[in-house]
Amino acid sequence: MELAAKKRLQLYAGRSHPQLATDITAHLGVELGDAKLQTFANGEIKCQLSESVRGSDVFIIQSHCVPINESIMEMLIMIDAASRGSAKRITAVCPYYGYSRQDRKAEGREPISAKLIANMLVTAGANRMVSVDLHSPQIQGFFDKPVDHLVAMPVMLEYLREHGGDDLVIVSPDAGRIKVAERYAQHLQADLAFVYKTRPKGKVSTVEAREVIGDVSGRRCVLIDDMIDTAGTMSAAGDLLKSRGATEVLAMATHGILSGPAIDRLKNSAIERVVITDTVPLPPEKEIDKIEVLSVAKIIAAAIEAVFDDTSVSELFGGENYS
Amino acid sequence: MELAAKKRLQLYAGRSHPQLATDITAHLGVELGDAKLQTFANGEIKCQLSESVRGSDVFIIQSHCVPINESIMEMLIMIDAASRGSAKRITAVCPYYGYSRQDRKAEGREPISAKLIANMLVTAGANRMVSVDLHSPQIQGFFDKPVDHLVAMPVMLEYLREHGGDDLVIVSPDAGRIKVAERYAQHLQADLAFVYKTRPKGKVSTVEAREVIGDVSGRRCVLIDDMIDTAGTMSAAGDLLKSRGATEVLAMATHGILSGPAIDRLKNSAIERVVITDTVPLPPEKEIDKIEVLSVAKIIAAAIEAVFDDTSVSELFGGENYS
Amino acid sequence: MELAAKKRLQLYAGRSHPQLATDITAHLGVELGDAKLQTFANGEIKCQLSESVRGSDVFIIQSHCVPINESIMEMLIMIDAASRGSAKRITAVCPYYGYSRQDRKAEGREPISAKLIANMLVTAGANRMVSVDLHSPQIQGFFDKPVDHLVAMPVMLEYLREHGGDDLVIVSPDAGRIKVAERYAQHLQADLAFVYKTRPKGKVSTVEAREVIGDVSGRRCVLIDDMIDTAGTMSAAGDLLKSRGATEVLAMATHGILSGPAIDRLKNSAIERVVITDTVPLPPEKEIDKIEVLSVAKIIAAAIEAVFDDTSVSELFGGENYS
Amino acid sequence: MELAAKKRLQLYAGRSHPQLATDITAHLGVELGDAKLQTFANGEIKCQLSESVRGSDVFIIQSHCVPINESIMEMLIMIDAASRGSAKRITAVCPYYGYSRQDRKAEGREPISAKLIANMLVTAGANRMVSVDLHSPQIQGFFDKPVDHLVAMPVMLEYLREHGGDDLVIVSPDAGRIKVAERYAQHLQADLAFVYKTRPKGKVSTVEAREVIGDVSGRRCVLIDDMIDTAGTMSAAGDLLKSRGATEVLAMATHGILSGPAIDRLKNSAIERVVITDTVPLPPEKEIDKIEVLSVAKIIAAAIEAVFDDTSVSELFGGENYS
Amino acid sequence: MELAAKKRLQLYAGRSHPQLATDITAHLGVELGDAKLQTFANGEIKCQLSESVRGSDVFIIQSHCVPINESIMEMLIMIDAASRGSAKRITAVCPYYGYSRQDRKAEGREPISAKLIANMLVTAGANRMVSVDLHSPQIQGFFDKPVDHLVAMPVMLEYLREHGGDDLVIVSPDAGRIKVAERYAQHLQADLAFVYKTRPKGKVSTVEAREVIGDVSGRRCVLIDDMIDTAGTMSAAGDLLKSRGATEVLAMATHGILSGPAIDRLKNSAIERVVITDTVPLPPEKEIDKIEVLSVAKIIAAAIEAVFDDTSVSELFGGENYS
Amino acid sequence: MELAAKKRLQLYAGRSHPQLATDITAHLGVELGDAKLQTFANGEIKCQLSESVRGSDVFIIQSHCVPINESIMEMLIMIDAASRGSAKRITAVCPYYGYSRQDRKAEGREPISAKLIANMLVTAGANRMVSVDLHSPQIQGFFDKPVDHLVAMPVMLEYLREHGGDDLVIVSPDAGRIKVAERYAQHLQADLAFVYKTRPKGKVSTVEAREVIGDVSGRRCVLIDDMIDTAGTMSAAGDLLKSRGATEVLAMATHGILSGPAIDRLKNSAIERVVITDTVPLPPEKEIDKIEVLSVAKIIAAAIEAVFDDTSVSELFGGENYS
Repeated sequence: MELAAKKRLQLYAGRSHPQLATDITAHLGVELGDAKLQTFANGEIKCQLSESVRGSDVFIIQSHCVPINESIMEMLIMIDAASRGSAKRITAVCPYYGYSRQDRKAEGREPISAKLIANMLVTAGANRMVSVDLHSPQIQGFFDKPVDHLVAMPVMLEYLREHGGDDLVIVSPDAGRIKVAERYAQHLQADLAFVYKTRPKGKVSTVEAREVIGDVSGRRCVLIDDMIDTAGTMSAAGDLLKSRGATEVLAMATHGILSGPAIDRLKNSAIERVVITDTVPLPPEKEIDKIEVLSVAKIIAAAIEAVFDDTSVSELFGGENYS
Repeated sequence: MELAAKKRLQLYAGRSHPQLATDITAHLGVELGDAKLQTFANGEIKCQLSESVRGSDVFIIQSHCVPINESIMEMLIMIDAASRGSAKRITAVCPYYGYSRQDRKAEGREPISAKLIANMLVTAGANRMVSVDLHSPQIQGFFDKPVDHLVAMPVMLEYLREHGGDDLVIVSPDAGRIKVAERYAQHLQADLAFVYKTRPKGKVSTVEAREVIGDVSGRRCVLIDDMIDTAGTMSAAGDLLKSRGATEVLAMATHGILSGPAIDRLKNSAIERVVITDTVPLPPEKEIDKIEVLSVAKIIAAAIEAVFDDTSVSELFGGENYS
Repeated sequence: MELAAKKRLQLYAGRSHPQLATDITAHLGVELGDAKLQTFANGEIKCQLSESVRGSDVFIIQSHCVPINESIMEMLIMIDAASRGSAKRITAVCPYYGYSRQDRKAEGREPISAKLIANMLVTAGANRMVSVDLHSPQIQGFFDKPVDHLVAMPVMLEYLREHGGDDLVIVSPDAGRIKVAERYAQHLQADLAFVYKTRPKGKVSTVEAREVIGDVSGRRCVLIDDMIDTAGTMSAAGDLLKSRGATEVLAMATHGILSGPAIDRLKNSAIERVVITDTVPLPPEKEIDKIEVLSVAKIIAAAIEAVFDDTSVSELFGGENYS
Repeated sequence: MELAAKKRLQLYAGRSHPQLATDITAHLGVELGDAKLQTFANGEIKCQLSESVRGSDVFIIQSHCVPINESIMEMLIMIDAASRGSAKRITAVCPYYGYSRQDRKAEGREPISAKLIANMLVTAGANRMVSVDLHSPQIQGFFDKPVDHLVAMPVMLEYLREHGGDDLVIVSPDAGRIKVAERYAQHLQADLAFVYKTRPKGKVSTVEAREVIGDVSGRRCVLIDDMIDTAGTMSAAGDLLKSRGATEVLAMATHGILSGPAIDRLKNSAIERVVITDTVPLPPEKEIDKIEVLSVAKIIAAAIEAVFDDTSVSELFGGENYS
Repeated sequence: MELAAKKRLQLYAGRSHPQLATDITAHLGVELGDAKLQTFANGEIKCQLSESVRGSDVFIIQSHCVPINESIMEMLIMIDAASRGSAKRITAVCPYYGYSRQDRKAEGREPISAKLIANMLVTAGANRMVSVDLHSPQIQGFFDKPVDHLVAMPVMLEYLREHGGDDLVIVSPDAGRIKVAERYAQHLQADLAFVYKTRPKGKVSTVEAREVIGDVSGRRCVLIDDMIDTAGTMSAAGDLLKSRGATEVLAMATHGILSGPAIDRLKNSAIERVVITDTVPLPPEKEIDKIEVLSVAKIIAAAIEAVFDDTSVSELFGGENYS
Repeated sequence: MELAAKKRLQLYAGRSHPQLATDITAHLGVELGDAKLQTFANGEIKCQLSESVRGSDVFIIQSHCVPINESIMEMLIMIDAASRGSAKRITAVCPYYGYSRQDRKAEGREPISAKLIANMLVTAGANRMVSVDLHSPQIQGFFDKPVDHLVAMPVMLEYLREHGGDDLVIVSPDAGRIKVAERYAQHLQADLAFVYKTRPKGKVSTVEAREVIGDVSGRRCVLIDDMIDTAGTMSAAGDLLKSRGATEVLAMATHGILSGPAIDRLKNSAIERVVITDTVPLPPEKEIDKIEVLSVAKIIAAAIEAVFDDTSVSELFGGENYS
């Protein structure tokens, strides 16, 4: 018995960020499957995929946002369901990849939780992973499966070209991020500066911005980072730039985690505008005027289509999705 | 260079049930290690074991209780830390094993989450698992590593011998539990009955107790189950027994999950007394007069000692820890 | 170089139950491959697949019937041959899954042989497994590969609707089987009863049927179990039902193992009719008048076709192939 | 809590060759554990190790002799029981390793069953393997675990030195065995010859001995092989040697499988004496005068002791246990 | 979203033997991909596949020739790149498989490096392996993935039929190779002989040819081996044949490693002609008149096409590619 | 049979850096085992461990220095030998870890070779890894086995305290290294500066130092990096510092790879002194006056002793061996 082989695309999403999933499927022109997710009174998550995934190319979309451990477990359970349901290939789409800063032992007897997440995804049955702006590029090596690394830079650059003006200075708020800032500067033919910061060992959220290096006085500054979590680094850097004479400060980051004191800090900081993307949802209580959200749904949709069609993902980014 | 080999026992506990961990270590006469656990504002868990575990026989105690997904992730992270810290052997001690009712596909395209949890524990680095009264004994087969299955029956029987009186009827609230009830009945030389229940497919917490089988009129009844979750089954069974003439109803279950409407249901039910163990913590707001908590700390401590000493665990239970 | 991908179906069968394999292929309208199986004088099995399986979707059919260890080893060897011969996907079709009752540790220091069989099949190269009426549904969780669980219920119900009459009582011969009996009762809108049985620990084939619960007097009873092995449970249950006034007793079970004293027991029992399926062959010396064999060949053929075509298997059973 | 670590040796044996197991334990001065092995009426094997193996160094002895598939499955089940019973290390002792001639694809679409057996043993939980005179030394590479390869040569040479006389010619009955024959010749300072044989492809037991090469006329010849299965090769070689003028022919082989027509062939052949070892049992009906059995129990016992004591195994053989 | 599935063939080659890769692609009529291989000053190899391999059937061609460790590492790195680049299937094509003589422990505490190479290829991401004339057929069992074993015999036989003449004697230069020689003899209906050789244990390249067995005087002799490494065995065998009256000696071997003193030995030996294939490149400084190189490019190309097309490889060889 | 368990330490070293291995064993007061390593004429490496490693805690020391691929393969082969020789635990000691800069995909379709090396070590049989100053700390996450990360900082600081003087400025030659420079500055209470560099994408050794940031004029500068490979970065940074008024420039790096033009560049640069360690050997032809070599042998020896003794490694470094 012989048949022509076919490929079928199916998308399911966890409950952590339904809007993004809806937007991705809208770009793709396909319907989102219903995973019939619910949480029992005892906290256990239940999942039942609504349609047969037998032989399908299944994409499971879940941003690892708050409540992060729920989000991750829900994704693992969905992957397990797809795997036992005989999906041909399962791609874990993690617009924001959780625990990405725990990517090494910072001190003895610590876990490397970003590796643990990678192992969990693969053990549950994921055949590949798609993510946006991983905190460190080495996380790709935590997988022995293919990883498609997407970057928000194209939408960020588009925004800056429209709203930025001519005399921009790209500023890294942290020594570790200067390579990304440099890439933005090259694309925009802008100058570069950065804030030198020290974080005393062993204390977690205390951030001490010290000094800016580079010429910022009388200039419009764009701070670039991969994420804004408690906004300590960003707001301190913004204030410093202003105190050093910057005429305007724009803060940009792919992942707007905005946890704990973040919104208050941003409100009170000298930063005029905060641009983030929708890899993580922005709940209504965090929507403040300063914050603008760009969408990466189109980028993720294009990547999913390329993965399904077997066409190049790096071409989508002109090869700039690695670093 | 040659040295005599030594074995060193170390215990660490997650944050889901600190009292139980303290009680276990008290029984063992050892000190509980400090895993320096904290949750960041963004919800990520951080862990750093306070002392070197190099070469040690490490036991990580964590009950998979509410918030269950946090508890499980925390345990996995701790196991990862111990594994990377060069522990010689890591035993995951799960007094209550989460997702244990998702141990098979009840319908198509569902996950088997209890197997997923098993795979996660092993992938994170656990070399063995200890649990109390697993929902189904087949979960032992979800592991290819050794599993030590403990049972709360000895403390339950001790309680019944003290408080039960002579004319007990052991009642299974559910057809699936009758084997456990039978074992209790044999030990107490008591009669046996059970409640025949039907649970309409596809609806989760709706339980419909129908009929009791066996002679309960004018008798003191002891309902036996492995867990009380929303207490639907138990309270309906208790009410039924009473309506069938039982003089007194005692409900016993190892795991007092008591989620959602459980406390209200128990309060309002005809059950006179509910006996559970401390595999899951009983928060103050759930402490009602009817509920009595027995401790399995001594049993778990004895099992840990046997595992560490390489002596038999089934001897602790006279071979009754399997079914 | 680019080609349209094709799928090719190939079926091979071990020697344990040639008739069933022939019937399955007849339903599918495909030819059974020749695995050139032989047993050397020293007992080693030799296999050589007659045709190239390169890139094919290969199904290897073998019921784990007597001699069970031979049957299992033969299947493993065939899977190895297909795997090394570059089959694209290998499905182990086990109409009767061996060692399924050793699915947990019943006592300390025992194996969990049903898990061992699962691991063996996967290690040999099976990518998925198909079976009929597994002894416990948790065996699905023994695999991390997809399992298609088929049920004989449709053919059984069809038989009962034709031959059963109106006033049926569905009887579980064992407390552990009552859920299956309940499902039959629901489909047939029949009453339910069951036999309460105790099996003294540590002795294997001694079965002691004690009491029937439910109203059976003057009724036609249908005993339902997953398998009849030595027929101790069934024949004792049948006799009991008769002694309690049943007008007729029909025993139904998917797997007619019928080992050791089974035929004698059935012959001598009060059971009027025994209905089994052909998951296991019925050798001529066991063909007695009482026994009727229904065929699951059509069900297995439909499942194979669905797996090959990537269509839903649970739809074949209206979702009733899980429990 | 800190303890001095201890090592404990435990031996269990399958039912394929009880005498050898008894002899091995006698040499070691330890008691053989009772694995409580039984075969159910349906052919399934049951096992329960009689004593706790927790933390022990467990050796499971099973020769893969007739019924070979039963023997292998029984060994796998015992390994599973020891593994789940928390043995520290499990050594599979296979005096005769089954399926060893299926160590390569001799034709397309065949299995490599000797590799399958290796994978099965490891999957079941074996940490290491001990065997005697593997059919091809490459089988060691089928394991990624340590293999201790023992050789029967010391007992064979001792026999030849006592009974052989001065003018021996060592003869290989098959081109593939000449390296072993050469090693014997070197030890005994004997001459060498061999029988050139052709085995028509695709037919299994038909052996056609063609011609002897080397000087055998008027000499005492010793045929050396690793096993005698159907004895076709050996008896034809023996007859040829006699027809070429040999004064006496002695056939030696480690594994006396002696299946099918073997005994008849040996009886009718010109071979005066057949010397085998006890890696495989010789049932009473095969005990003929010509056959002499030497014991390898002492060799296996010494290897087990060395493995347990962490002393060198190759020293036991002066480095001659590899080839 | 549904698409017809397609298969796409892509070939990449390492730098060890560019000519062979070019010849293979010429036969296939496809273009060789550019892997952009370079070696940094510090010796590290860099690779970047020039085109997207997403979803492709990728063949990576690399002969494990001098510098062998570089060649192997380069192949592993290329496989890793293809695997992370989402190739659908990766076939490692190793015309000459390195370390193939280290296929067993020849003495205690040695590695089995041929198994190590197999494990490395699979760990890096190879899904299958293709090789020509493996030193021992058991190496196929070192893989649990499909291996396509090709043989140079067809091109060798073609050569002999053209250039050999009528009265050939096929001679094995070593007892271990006689089975291959026999197969040649059968095809050519030639006589057979062989050289009996002893290699003192523990010394590596010292080879001592002792005696020829079979009738070679006045005959044209063809020595057959799988490889010529330092040419000690071959040249000694050739000289011996001449001294025993052979009229002409031709040496044939698939793999012309020709390391160290090989060229000098062949020059100085009595062998008139040496026929090898191009599985290993022949550098200009080794091109001597005596040596003739046949090409296996066509055979490898045919195998690649069969693997891609899912047609039988053994048919290409009339089933003679196993032994 | 019961014995007290003992631990035995054994060290073997590859041939890449014999002096370091000798120095390590001298510090430990143990003898280095002889691995009897040799390279055959065909380039294959042979290994035979001279003594039994059965049950031992084996450390295999090999720096991945030039010829790097040989060094890595040799290490893998040694690990395989130790693993098959029944070592209890194998630690791969890689003073310099090869391919560490290929720790992420810098562009599409590239390998992540540093992960490949990790996988190879583990597949060959390594149970743990010890290295010094890994290029990126995330490489620890490439292993699921324990990694002991050592740092050369203590010996570097000791040198600077003796030879440095008071007015040091610590300079990072590259934005990516500033965190390490900062740690040095903290320890020495020195100022910090760094050189801002841009490396045009896709070209490998071309380095363009642009500008120094921080106050260096009239100061003594210490450039800190993890390795000096072709010395392009370092020498350009040194020249720049001098041109900006530095009174003296000292370059420090753990790994003195010094490949290709490195020595010439250093000779010709304005750097007065280059301090490296002995993780990589310095061949005589590279010994120039400017270069001073500090030893990490004592550090590695202390780590090996701690691993063997199960005492803390991070204590050796005051917790500073992570970042």
